[in-house]
Amino acid sequence: MLHLTAASTTNGVVQRSFTVNDVPGVLWSPEADVRAPLVLMGHGGGNHKLHPAMVGRARLLVTGCGFHVAVLDAPGHGERPPSAHDEAEIADLFRARAAGEPEGPIVVRYNTYLAELAVPEYRAALDELQQLAEIGTGGPVGYWGINMGTAIGVPLVAAEPRITAAVFGQHWPDELVEHAKKITIPIEFDLQWDDEHISRQDGLALFDAFASSEKSLHVNSGRHKDLPRFEAESAVRFFARHL
Amino acid sequence: MLHLTAASTTNGVVQRSFTVNDVPGVLWSPEADVRAPLVLMGHGGGNHKLHPAMVGRARLLVTGCGFHVAVLDAPGHGERPPSAHDEAEIADLFRARAAGEPEGPIVVRYNTYLAELAVPEYRAALDELQQLAEIGTGGPVGYWGINMGTAIGVPLVAAEPRITAAVFGQHWPDELVEHAKKITIPIEFDLQWDDEHISRQDGLALFDAFASSEKSLHVNSGRHKDLPRFEAESAVRFFARHL
Repeated sequence: MLHLTAASTTNGVVQRSFTVNDVPGVLWSPEADVRAPLVLMGHGGGNHKLHPAMVGRARLLVTGCGFHVAVLDAPGHGERPPSAHDEAEIADLFRARAAGEPEGPIVVRYNTYLAELAVPEYRAALDELQQLAEIGTGGPVGYWGINMGTAIGVPLVAAEPRITAAVFGQHWPDELVEHAKKITIPIEFDLQWDDEHISRQDGLALFDAFASSEKSLHVNSGRHKDLPRFEAESAVRFFARHL
Repeated sequence: MLHLTAASTTNGVVQRSFTVNDVPGVLWSPEADVRAPLVLMGHGGGNHKLHPAMVGRARLLVTGCGFHVAVLDAPGHGERPPSAHDEAEIADLFRARAAGEPEGPIVVRYNTYLAELAVPEYRAALDELQQLAEIGTGGPVGYWGINMGTAIGVPLVAAEPRITAAVFGQHWPDELVEHAKKITIPIEFDLQWDDEHISRQDGLALFDAFASSEKSLHVNSGRHKDLPRFEAESAVRFFARHL
């Protein structure tokens, strides 16, 4: 059941908070009340639905393409209090980071757990959002998530035939390759050439696993957090081509 | 010595043929007579300065960015009659292709020979083009060439400090890696994930060799000739950011 709050409008972008089965999300829309494609987004680990990266990407999609954009708080993130399990995993991640140990195994394990919870949440939200007249059923749907947004998005897209184009990037292949092999929609994938957490071999292996006949990889020099801002504009052009 | 022909103007793009030391080239410019950056281009093997890919890229740069764009016929290409050596190399390439043998070793050998001739031709053309008031000395200069345009462009850019940003792609690392290691300017590099001539390992090795702190790799699914048209638009945005 979708509960929408009253809308606020800033510079031509209408923002509405919502909940679906108590999971909080945000929906951004153009002011013009016409049916348009929907892009679902997933935020990064430790962030939330109103992180500046989410707001900025939504604004590009709404003002540049006239699309609707929705994002959910992941379990244990944003308005959703962390469970004891979440807290233990985050403590283990901070412990590994402080000790200079690899973060990958912990992030992969924790994000796999979160994805199992989040995938049905996203599918239920999509069911409800498609009941809105300005989105509707049968229209194009995209998915955009990097880092933890990819850990959730790859199994989501593998399970969800309504999603027809996706932008992913910057995650390990371990738990995602088997899902990626089932994905045949157009993909844009980002990775960082000097990522201190994800090896080149691992990043390329995940890109390679997608069964999509149409897929693009964007590699940039720099470390994990240096993903250039122009890749967001590239993702918007990708969705404009495909949705 | 630069000899320019009379200009013809089509849809806001001024096209002038020229020669520098008897090497024929084409210069495209905006109609407005103001100083602007110059992008040098290199065409692909078997093509020439007025191939539709060259004309199309020049139009994007002139109309999109207001830049000047120049390209030369490579030795043995376009208006320049092939030598006996050119003819023997091309015959060997066609023989290998008909026999289903790898084309790479022949292309690498022949393009290396052509680059040794073409690099000083491009540097002389740059000397002369910078004498034009609308280009001038000291302004930004780019280089854009894929395939044989990369075989010529990588040694050119390694030798030519006036070039400050370059788009390359789709060539073998064998003879280019040592030049690429000397290049530190921003680079955008294209390769095809399913290239039937250039292995992934070879393509990635050449990208990796550039010493540039700022470099981007764009990989697309598809075979050697399937490089998507949107990569030309991406290259234009790259030059708009850097020149």
